[in-house]
Amino acid sequence: MSEKKKKKPHHYGNKHISPAELGRYIEQTLLTPNATEADVIKLCKSAIRYNFCSVCVHPYYVPLSKAILSGHETTVTTVIGFPLGMTMKNIKVYEAMQAALYGAQELDVVLNIGAVKSGNLDYVAGELSEILAANKSIVHTAIIETCYLTEKEKSAVTEIAAGCGVGFIKTSTGFGPKGATDKDVKLIKNVLKDRAGVKASGNIRTLPQVMRLIKSGAARIGTSAGLEIMQEALAS
Amino acid sequence: MSEKKKKKPHHYGNKHISPAELGRYIEQTLLTPNATEADVIKLCKSAIRYNFCSVCVHPYYVPLSKAILSGHETTVTTVIGFPLGMTMKNIKVYEAMQAALYGAQELDVVLNIGAVKSGNLDYVAGELSEILAANKSIVHTAIIETCYLTEKEKSAVTEIAAGCGVGFIKTSTGFGPKGATDKDVKLIKNVLKDRAGVKASGNIRTLPQVMRLIKSGAARIGTSAGLEIMQEALAS
Repeated sequence: MSEKKKKKPHHYGNKHISPAELGRYIEQTLLTPNATEADVIKLCKSAIRYNFCSVCVHPYYVPLSKAILSGHETTVTTVIGFPLGMTMKNIKVYEAMQAALYGAQELDVVLNIGAVKSGNLDYVAGELSEILAANKSIVHTAIIETCYLTEKEKSAVTEIAAGCGVGFIKTSTGFGPKGATDKDVKLIKNVLKDRAGVKASGNIRTLPQVMRLIKSGAARIGTSAGLEIMQEALAS
Repeated sequence: MSEKKKKKPHHYGNKHISPAELGRYIEQTLLTPNATEADVIKLCKSAIRYNFCSVCVHPYYVPLSKAILSGHETTVTTVIGFPLGMTMKNIKVYEAMQAALYGAQELDVVLNIGAVKSGNLDYVAGELSEILAANKSIVHTAIIETCYLTEKEKSAVTEIAAGCGVGFIKTSTGFGPKGATDKDVKLIKNVLKDRAGVKASGNIRTLPQVMRLIKSGAARIGTSAGLEIMQEALAS
């Protein structure tokens, strides 16, 4: 395969996207319950190789990831209250503070979906505000776990999170029965406008899927298949 | 159905077990990602009705469960580092302290399975010791998530947890690809002897399954189908 062919841009809507640009959309994710140190090292090395935007790892693996990625453009993202979002508020605040202290540059916070489904939206807003206030200089993402929400709830929590000042809304934890859909990305983007970006995540495994999600408005793609997607982009 | 028939004991090995005794084995569990306040209230009421040993709820729902179960025999169990066990040690310690402060009477702690799989057993032991030291008068359970472990690892973490002084070893979170098996219950019991009990959990849905697990050595059954299992026992 020629170098020229490798760099052929992919199309979404009327825009082009090169493999190098594609890498900047990808948040390479490893949140399996049995992820080892060796797995994390491999993940970070692949992120450096393709200049991925970020890696997303368990809090326990933040120091290791940070050490490997030091001096590279790829940031370290970790998760707060993951994947159920239903621990106590103080714990989520403390987890966020500690993760930042250990070197996490971005925090993906799972909203308390039980509170959303119980109609306690004020609690959800208060919790997110406190978490954001704990680390003012860090990019926060609210994971809203779309698969459990009605359309009205998706809009409501997006509005709440935008009001709190998050950098991104993320569709899914990857642990629910369903991941990102084009329709949900469009809905969230429509509520957000330019106040924050949309991270599509959950069961994203192919290049055409990524291109559709970007076309729908996703600014970032959270996936554990970043490597395979890049290889698909470079080979096509 | 006559009252006499309702009270017919079920058999496991050469022992008998009545429906009333069966209720004392059951830890009625609600750890779904979208559990509402209404769901928790329903759960606690069913636990009172059948005098279940315990309910197991998200930390967020400890105060609500505690308020409903006050004055009843059923205890409130909650989960620490659930279901992935891979947040930072300090967070798990703080979560345990806070959960006890809010009224939890038993704590089910997910071990850091990533650390187990990376061979860092000293870390796992240290973490569990610190969590137990934070609440000395409370019953702790170590969830070892058997589905990700080799036979050797299952024995090793059981030995570690017994050494730390847990009250129970629990087989599964219910979020992994596989739940409790008779074989795993026997293996854990064989390592433990009388130092602690075995809680079987994960995908337990029928009375015959419960009777087999008790026969294999389980002292407690963690299940979200406690109601259905009791109804099966009362009808048979």
